[in-house]
Amino acid sequence: MFGVDDVQNATSAAITNPPGLGNFKFGKLVIFDDPMTIDKNFQSEPVARAQGFYFYDMKNDYNAWFAYTLVFNSTQHKGTLNIMGADLMMVQSRDLSVVGGTGDFFMSRGIVTFETDTFEGAKYFRVKMDIKLYDCY
Amino acid sequence: MFGVDDVQNATSAAITNPPGLGNFKFGKLVIFDDPMTIDKNFQSEPVARAQGFYFYDMKNDYNAWFAYTLVFNSTQHKGTLNIMGADLMMVQSRDLSVVGGTGDFFMSRGIVTFETDTFEGAKYFRVKMDIKLYDCY
Amino acid sequence: MFGVDDVQNATSAAITNPPGLGNFKFGKLVIFDDPMTIDKNFQSEPVARAQGFYFYDMKNDYNAWFAYTLVFNSTQHKGTLNIMGADLMMVQSRDLSVVGGTGDFFMSRGIVTFETDTFEGAKYFRVKMDIKLYDCY
Repeated sequence: MFGVDDVQNATSAAITNPPGLGNFKFGKLVIFDDPMTIDKNFQSEPVARAQGFYFYDMKNDYNAWFAYTLVFNSTQHKGTLNIMGADLMMVQSRDLSVVGGTGDFFMSRGIVTFETDTFEGAKYFRVKMDIKLYDCY
Repeated sequence: MFGVDDVQNATSAAITNPPGLGNFKFGKLVIFDDPMTIDKNFQSEPVARAQGFYFYDMKNDYNAWFAYTLVFNSTQHKGTLNIMGADLMMVQSRDLSVVGGTGDFFMSRGIVTFETDTFEGAKYFRVKMDIKLYDCY
Repeated sequence: MFGVDDVQNATSAAITNPPGLGNFKFGKLVIFDDPMTIDKNFQSEPVARAQGFYFYDMKNDYNAWFAYTLVFNSTQHKGTLNIMGADLMMVQSRDLSVVGGTGDFFMSRGIVTFETDTFEGAKYFRVKMDIKLYDCY
């Protein structure tokens, strides 16, 4: 079921129900506004918000697709990075594309490497994002 | 409720209901095929269509995320610009990324600056888009 | 209606019902994990998976918008290409943007040219994708 059962703590919500293609949530689309912190302690220094969406897209295994923006608004960094790509969840380390940036990250491009850090059932997961930028401007 | 109550004039429609995370339409996803005109009079010269989607993604305030294509098909310009990024609605002027282009805009990249021009409740809004391209090809 | 009526063979599924803006499926959003083969025989050599989504976005004609990743995992190519843009279905040959790449396609950009190869009602269609990359790294 889509919907939210913990409005107080939730930073994301599914907006569609999977239409029934396999048993791996194919078609479940989630919109998020998640904190990104400096390390895996979620109470450590926040560095950005990750705002965007993902959906599950495989019939026979867990697999997802993301498009989102990292919004930086600290004394260190102001600006955004725009990211999209497949999240091949069965691969330990997988790359998405940084396709653009604004502010301090004006015209940036690069790679974001995802590694699943923890996965606690349907309610919580944490992904490590390692960002490598290759400014060409 | 999603749906359309003015089929004659509508150029966009929500396809999901917000799942109930806060009071700022979190999770409402809208698909659009909107006219873009040379200035803020909607009967002024049309220069492009904006085709794509946005959704609201913040629990405590209005905030959105866009991905869309500007489709130019005039004597002046033929081609497309592909754009994505966060629309930080509480900021007066905010930047999204032009991540690619085709036709006259072959391989373009750049920035689109959004400024809300008018916001008439739930039914109509108008955004000024200032496009700066940095061809690198 | 959204949903899936042939789970065995389906590689995509609609996750929303069109909200009723015109008669051309405006607002129908489809998530897919489709095979891409070397030629139009769907049993010919598979070269990649196309994972992502599209939706219909025009009131008066068929028109769509795509964002997806080509996932290559063969002896020849490993890596991904990230693609987005309008699929102007009434135009015979139309271009989308390759906005990024990973692995063998590290930092690629380019153009994907779509041509509709066959369209068998609502259940099946096949698109020829001609990819031109312009590595700038």
